[in-house]
Amino acid sequence: MSEQQPPKSPTSRRAFLKAGLTAGGAAAFAPSALAGALGGGDPANQPPNIPEWTRSLGDGVAVRAYGKPSKHEAHVIRRDVEWLTASRESSVSFTPIHELDGIITPNGLGFERHHSGIAEVDPADYRLILHGLVDKPLIFTLDDLKRLPRVNRAHFCECAANSGMEWRGAQLNGCQYTHGMVHCVMYTGVTLKTLLGEAGVKPNAKWLLLEGGDSAAMTRSLPLQKALDDVLIAYRMNGEMLYPEHGYPARAVIPGWEANMWVKWLRRIEVGDQPWHHREETSKYTDLLENGKARRFTFVMDAKSIITSPSPQAPVNHKSGLTVLSGIAWSGRGKIARVDVSLDGGRNWRTARIDGPVWDKALTRFYYEFDWDGRELLLQSRAMDETGYVQPGKAELRKIRGVNSIYHNNGIQTWYLHKNGEIENVEIS
Amino acid sequence: MSEQQPPKSPTSRRAFLKAGLTAGGAAAFAPSALAGALGGGDPANQPPNIPEWTRSLGDGVAVRAYGKPSKHEAHVIRRDVEWLTASRESSVSFTPIHELDGIITPNGLGFERHHSGIAEVDPADYRLILHGLVDKPLIFTLDDLKRLPRVNRAHFCECAANSGMEWRGAQLNGCQYTHGMVHCVMYTGVTLKTLLGEAGVKPNAKWLLLEGGDSAAMTRSLPLQKALDDVLIAYRMNGEMLYPEHGYPARAVIPGWEANMWVKWLRRIEVGDQPWHHREETSKYTDLLENGKARRFTFVMDAKSIITSPSPQAPVNHKSGLTVLSGIAWSGRGKIARVDVSLDGGRNWRTARIDGPVWDKALTRFYYEFDWDGRELLLQSRAMDETGYVQPGKAELRKIRGVNSIYHNNGIQTWYLHKNGEIENVEIS
Repeated sequence: MSEQQPPKSPTSRRAFLKAGLTAGGAAAFAPSALAGALGGGDPANQPPNIPEWTRSLGDGVAVRAYGKPSKHEAHVIRRDVEWLTASRESSVSFTPIHELDGIITPNGLGFERHHSGIAEVDPADYRLILHGLVDKPLIFTLDDLKRLPRVNRAHFCECAANSGMEWRGAQLNGCQYTHGMVHCVMYTGVTLKTLLGEAGVKPNAKWLLLEGGDSAAMTRSLPLQKALDDVLIAYRMNGEMLYPEHGYPARAVIPGWEANMWVKWLRRIEVGDQPWHHREETSKYTDLLENGKARRFTFVMDAKSIITSPSPQAPVNHKSGLTVLSGIAWSGRGKIARVDVSLDGGRNWRTARIDGPVWDKALTRFYYEFDWDGRELLLQSRAMDETGYVQPGKAELRKIRGVNSIYHNNGIQTWYLHKNGEIENVEIS
Repeated sequence: MSEQQPPKSPTSRRAFLKAGLTAGGAAAFAPSALAGALGGGDPANQPPNIPEWTRSLGDGVAVRAYGKPSKHEAHVIRRDVEWLTASRESSVSFTPIHELDGIITPNGLGFERHHSGIAEVDPADYRLILHGLVDKPLIFTLDDLKRLPRVNRAHFCECAANSGMEWRGAQLNGCQYTHGMVHCVMYTGVTLKTLLGEAGVKPNAKWLLLEGGDSAAMTRSLPLQKALDDVLIAYRMNGEMLYPEHGYPARAVIPGWEANMWVKWLRRIEVGDQPWHHREETSKYTDLLENGKARRFTFVMDAKSIITSPSPQAPVNHKSGLTVLSGIAWSGRGKIARVDVSLDGGRNWRTARIDGPVWDKALTRFYYEFDWDGRELLLQSRAMDETGYVQPGKAELRKIRGVNSIYHNNGIQTWYLHKNGEIENVEIS
């Protein structure tokens, strides 16, 4: 489903924002604020009627051998942007991160990015070839991969182009579109180190080529050092086999590195002594700087965060009072150490509450509960990782990288909370 | 889908098993064993053809706004057993645990157990009433619940009747049926402690009644102490809103305790000074002992484990060589500390490798890799939790509890691996 319109220029809003917003009216969360905020009262005075669904039998088991969400959640879907690419076979559909919580992305909602559509692989005919600078070239069937020791690891997967439209200013009105090219699932698979150990790597080996089984034959060069560190050849996500759009029956998982390298429908691994300089690491997935030169091999995804609720697609539905701000943070360099939030466009920061597992190179969930006084706010979040890296502001980032880039925009995002509860994607200087 | 036939008597197999199996031929896993085990060879001699899916464009994005598994995984579904209950509205469909790995159960595959079918709740009309021995009775809308601080916690949910058919001997040929009334997802919700804090609990309060919005009006008594410890009112599972069959839009999560208490479509919480003695804690969910007395309020699920692969529905597809044994373990008393496996029916035990997160009252994944010599084996697993509790043998359990029970069978399960790779559910004495 496509709903997003082409971006409008955000410049007209800026002057107003600078002038119109005070330092923010948020107070610390106090449980006592809830009493007034809730609509409840003495149930003796307001007895809920016995609802319709308590008056009759519901569907029995086996009606839904594979379950699905309630019909009332039909709006929680991946969405694409028709004008973004030439065809749907080489396009993106975005994770509805504004409608999710916690850190696990359900398998049916993780963003898709294909270069020639979804390869429909028959698992019986699946083969993974491992050759090049190895002692013994090998071909693995899917059953072969399943006979090797398995590991289970949850990692975020983020497209290098996530937030790419925002380089030149506030563009897309919803975090599904600005930050929805990320998901996080628990993978089961075999380490690439195990496969390489079976084949035996020659002493002069330094790089690997990963090739997909799609008709783009997606190819990326991967340093051997990373391959031996934490790369997986995964065949399961959240317990079940990979979905077709995520590379069924096997894909590469390159923790913390740009998703383009996580080759899907993985068909071939070649071991060599230098990178291959294929299309996706020269013409694409490089960052054109202001001086006309381009950064290359920018594999690592820098620390980043986004407030998923409230956000443009998830407005505030009350006029004031207790409000939960929720978001996700992640870093390609390790664990998230801290997340700060600001309600006044970065003038004052408060430390958010992190809840749920904090894993290496995985989504981390943060919250900030506050008593909203109904005034306008400028909401921001800022991630810090265990290496000490701090998520930069957009202005800071543009000073170094300019605005020609598509990839690797991890700048701080600003949501403008209006008095009526609506949220707008804005830029503040 | 129903495939399981009514159980046959297992007694005829026992004598054979006692006599026919040696001490087991398993050797420690050695990576070198793989070379012979894999079907691979020099790819120059066996080049895989360019497969069909690499020759044409696949489906583009947005064709599947909510993704689903590959058509080749259509057999990975919940299954019920038609003869088990009087109607499908009061029945069970089992998690296909033999087809899953890791510790997260996908939302569409978690077992169902209903008492009057699936209540189809309209979230706009959802209300949760909290009353009884409280200072201030409250009614919460779904939006109210979402305005309270959230937590994210993964827990197993196991029906007390899981493995219930096995009390009198090996009955059902597949762990989906013997152990498939368990799942594990990450919940997002508000703690019950928070809700009780808002209402204010009277000094003489000791028990709570939880009531569901289904037409069974499922009711269970819950000690206040547990409610204040770790109980959640959850509205999300694995990030997205609960599926209807799991209690949409809100259910109780009672970590480590029998699933019947995890009231779905939660409609009412009453605070009182003693338990209510309703149907599901008197006529049902009590354990009839040999002496004619029944155990009551047996809330905690004891430590348990099951080998999910190989298993009757997941046979071994090779004749010998490297083999991965995989399973799940869990305990209602805390974390799993260790899992042992036996290949010879419990004569010799080896410590399994635990991989993935080890959480409090959650599924824990274990593996044991071995070089199968092609001989018959009797596979068992045995869980130990952090309190020192060790999963008992079935004989041990029957000595204390007899065979009249339906609930709380956590005895060690035995799989008989035949030479042809097939697996049978057996009993050994």
